[in-house]
Amino acid sequence: MHIDELDTPAYTVDLDVMERNIASMAEHCRNIDISLRCHTKSHKIPEIAHRQVRAGAIGICCQKLGEAEVMAAAGIENILIPYNIVGARKVERLTRVAKRTEITVAVDDVITARGISDQAVKDGCRVNVVIELDTGTKRCGVQSPEAAADLAERIMDLSGLTFKGIMIFPSHPEAKGFLRETVERITQKGIPIEIISGGGTGGEENSKALGCTETRSGSYIWEGMSRIGNSGMLNAERCACRMIVTVVSAPTPDRIIIDGGMKTFASYPPTPYGHIIEHPDAEIYGMSVEHGHVDVSRCTHRFKVGERLSVIPLHQEMALNLHDELNGVRGDQVEVIWPVAGRGKVK
Amino acid sequence: MHIDELDTPAYTVDLDVMERNIASMAEHCRNIDISLRCHTKSHKIPEIAHRQVRAGAIGICCQKLGEAEVMAAAGIENILIPYNIVGARKVERLTRVAKRTEITVAVDDVITARGISDQAVKDGCRVNVVIELDTGTKRCGVQSPEAAADLAERIMDLSGLTFKGIMIFPSHPEAKGFLRETVERITQKGIPIEIISGGGTGGEENSKALGCTETRSGSYIWEGMSRIGNSGMLNAERCACRMIVTVVSAPTPDRIIIDGGMKTFASYPPTPYGHIIEHPDAEIYGMSVEHGHVDVSRCTHRFKVGERLSVIPLHQEMALNLHDELNGVRGDQVEVIWPVAGRGKVK
Repeated sequence: MHIDELDTPAYTVDLDVMERNIASMAEHCRNIDISLRCHTKSHKIPEIAHRQVRAGAIGICCQKLGEAEVMAAAGIENILIPYNIVGARKVERLTRVAKRTEITVAVDDVITARGISDQAVKDGCRVNVVIELDTGTKRCGVQSPEAAADLAERIMDLSGLTFKGIMIFPSHPEAKGFLRETVERITQKGIPIEIISGGGTGGEENSKALGCTETRSGSYIWEGMSRIGNSGMLNAERCACRMIVTVVSAPTPDRIIIDGGMKTFASYPPTPYGHIIEHPDAEIYGMSVEHGHVDVSRCTHRFKVGERLSVIPLHQEMALNLHDELNGVRGDQVEVIWPVAGRGKVK
Repeated sequence: MHIDELDTPAYTVDLDVMERNIASMAEHCRNIDISLRCHTKSHKIPEIAHRQVRAGAIGICCQKLGEAEVMAAAGIENILIPYNIVGARKVERLTRVAKRTEITVAVDDVITARGISDQAVKDGCRVNVVIELDTGTKRCGVQSPEAAADLAERIMDLSGLTFKGIMIFPSHPEAKGFLRETVERITQKGIPIEIISGGGTGGEENSKALGCTETRSGSYIWEGMSRIGNSGMLNAERCACRMIVTVVSAPTPDRIIIDGGMKTFASYPPTPYGHIIEHPDAEIYGMSVEHGHVDVSRCTHRFKVGERLSVIPLHQEMALNLHDELNGVRGDQVEVIWPVAGRGKVK
């Protein structure tokens, strides 16, 4: 199918660009000698996860248990969930996955560890755990090396759990002291540390410098406008995704309306929304729920109802999370239509 | 099933509150003598649409054709799509729906009207159209009474289309002159106007005062925090929805983390995110993709990992658009679990 035959709005990914991004991150991690664990929350598509693993990733990361269930069901092995799994239904689901593949989860509280331990014992399986340190996110994570070492000791006393190590986010250089002292205190107790997991695309060197064994990196696969925009420069060559939209109204010479708004782009005021490839001077200046409002006053081109445009969304991951399908294109042909299998698995 | 057995995050609606909201809006519209056309983009659930119609609505409104397809397939009749339907695939799909139920679409350009006309002729069916006036949204819509009358005349010349009238949004009192002159110019041409459609929950009286025959109202079903918040007062009694979440981390005495973030609530900085029913002093001060960050420094209650909380989301409609299911609860029992059938139908 030609790309022009896709009904709009259509979320597309350029497969050449995506494959280049997958290969170059794998190579980068090999070069700096750190294991790559792909964060699949960026796409939630099992086949893409398999491609990342084949390119050299040691395994994947899923932000929610529901996503891990989808990936395990698609044959992905070695999954880290950097999220506290809490509650009777959650731990039951967790051990069902743990029986089928190696799974590691973050904990920052003995209540969480005990909940998983109880279920693992009941179900006769083991679950790997890493202790999350709060290295500056001010989100989850233990607050001190003492607390981390104390929790490690208590985890060692719990059946059904295998203590694996430590997880941090972000991998800022400032985390060095906290991380080093935590490692010292835990190893002084005779508890071995196998994994030190750092996080975030762009933070691979920092993670390595901090002594991390692996990096949880995800967004590199799309190289979204938001990250590239931070450096003040839009590198469209590495942005793999495009939202194909149609001009549905051209009510004034200065304004056109496209058929995607907040429920298509996941962009909210006052973000820059997205970048229109064909007309860089056109500015998406607003969005309502299903309409995108575009200022074309600086364009010489006269827009007509029915024209199609290609937009790099600001939030590639958040936008994809609104779509049921991702269209993989090569050149002007649609090569694959992937269901976004992990979308909506918020539990 | 008891509500406490729902895994979290779980989107719930209090059926008593929803039914009260449905009945009171239907009664209000009867009292002021305006037809109610329910905007189902607020929920995207066919059974709820049927309930609204049974309560007295003349039909429904769908913001996208994909939603109208879902509703038509569930037996809903008389659907208005206040959206320009543009492109070969779209008009094909439109006429497939038009053959099964009465369907009306907005147009603001003869290109759009001609596209629908061509397909309707080809498929041997008729599609109703209303002309959208831009009464202040600065989105779609013709810009002047002259342009509206001219377009009406051209529509009358196109086969396969039935001209029905006019559509405005919003129904502000300032629209009066534009609307009156448009009606005059069109009727002077001998073209009858059957429908004048106004829009927006809370704008029913304004629509009536402007001479509208119907009001497109949707959000009244949830009475979301964002609308009520505008009047400076949170009326939780009329807010039908709750997101049930779990405390997954309590890393400091001042902070807890809940298991829902931007992919659960559709809230982005710097919105107020949501209101925690059990602890009004707790403030959701930030969200990452899957975590909600809550400041509990003003609470005397000591939060523990595993506790469940009920949150009124800021954006009820946008949040529901991220979920596959809506749990209808009565008291503490889950009475129905509705698939959000129209979710993701962005095309």
